[in-house]
Amino acid sequence: MTSPAEVSAATLGLTELHPLIQQFYAGQVRHLDAFRAEEFAATFTEDGVFDHRPGTDPLVGRQAIAAAVRGYQQTKHAADPVQRRHWFNMLQVFPQGDGTVRTEYYALVLHTRPGTPEPQVGPSCFVTDVLAVREDGEVLTKSRTVRQDHLV
Amino acid sequence: MTSPAEVSAATLGLTELHPLIQQFYAGQVRHLDAFRAEEFAATFTEDGVFDHRPGTDPLVGRQAIAAAVRGYQQTKHAADPVQRRHWFNMLQVFPQGDGTVRTEYYALVLHTRPGTPEPQVGPSCFVTDVLAVREDGEVLTKSRTVRQDHLV
Amino acid sequence: MTSPAEVSAATLGLTELHPLIQQFYAGQVRHLDAFRAEEFAATFTEDGVFDHRPGTDPLVGRQAIAAAVRGYQQTKHAADPVQRRHWFNMLQVFPQGDGTVRTEYYALVLHTRPGTPEPQVGPSCFVTDVLAVREDGEVLTKSRTVRQDHLV
Repeated sequence: MTSPAEVSAATLGLTELHPLIQQFYAGQVRHLDAFRAEEFAATFTEDGVFDHRPGTDPLVGRQAIAAAVRGYQQTKHAADPVQRRHWFNMLQVFPQGDGTVRTEYYALVLHTRPGTPEPQVGPSCFVTDVLAVREDGEVLTKSRTVRQDHLV
Repeated sequence: MTSPAEVSAATLGLTELHPLIQQFYAGQVRHLDAFRAEEFAATFTEDGVFDHRPGTDPLVGRQAIAAAVRGYQQTKHAADPVQRRHWFNMLQVFPQGDGTVRTEYYALVLHTRPGTPEPQVGPSCFVTDVLAVREDGEVLTKSRTVRQDHLV
Repeated sequence: MTSPAEVSAATLGLTELHPLIQQFYAGQVRHLDAFRAEEFAATFTEDGVFDHRPGTDPLVGRQAIAAAVRGYQQTKHAADPVQRRHWFNMLQVFPQGDGTVRTEYYALVLHTRPGTPEPQVGPSCFVTDVLAVREDGEVLTKSRTVRQDHLV
């Protein structure tokens, strides 16, 4: 059986990869910001790793990732129902020899409270991903490492 | 007579559409942020619809859109001359069967006051557009719906 | 001898240039935000001009640009060690007849202090570059003019 990670993205160049991955990230954060836990988790590979905070264990696999999103929604969001928006920017894509694509980018989270037009801004983060990219355009996150700028 | 909206964008794929639309949006907000009312309105189709705020009537047509930009400049901006900057991000483009392209993206408005390096940030918005995209690369906004995150 | 600036980018269209230049800018700011002075300076042409602030002389040449980055690090950053992040957005690329590419974009600087998740935001800037773009994808900044929105 061939997993997406084993299918080479070698035939796709920067011209194709950059917009493809931007479109992928836009859809991925849309799921996250709407707390669609299963849909967000499904943007990772089955064995995807989400290392979202130093000092905590990485989330491994779609079930763990979905559970973390639901847990956040049921605790922090339930107590303080802000609209979160994840912004990614300054994206670099680096096709790897094994058919995956490593990416590096900045991320910023905005939190808007009902009735308050000025969002709370932060944290600012530096993120590194390894993506599985198939020639048909399907993209999945194999692993993500988030480093928040204030935790140094 | 063939309007841009009737010309199919079907032959353009994500690789062409994503940068094309980013370039279009950058030019469009440049007009808006400089209060070039007619030039901004001309980035919409003649019958373009700009639904910029729930609870108010959408602006319909270039004249109405240009008048709204001029009105904003002559009232709010005249009283408080900030430099506005519209930032769009996390763009998704969805080519439609009818030759138009639906887009979804986040938007953030920054307001800088003379002498104050830190801009006022917000509101944060979620925007959906329908664009007319011609194969020669001309893009026009047919309709825009803005939902501000703090108005829920 | 042929310098990158003399090699035409005329065969590259918007589809290639937009992602190429986004990737270039992402790498360029990564050097700047990490105070890799020589690497940042090497993203300019040998005679590159960096006009970063009205009322001050532009920096001319890689040595001057690198020295400015080191100077900033050894004074302002040493006294107040924030993590800076430069965000560019709303990019327009305009291929010129001479093989260079003029760009216009918004820029925003975020400063995160250790332990404080909310970055200081600003200044907001409008930037114009002239880039040397080679057909093999190498990009260098020939000149950059930064206008901070609060200095009007």
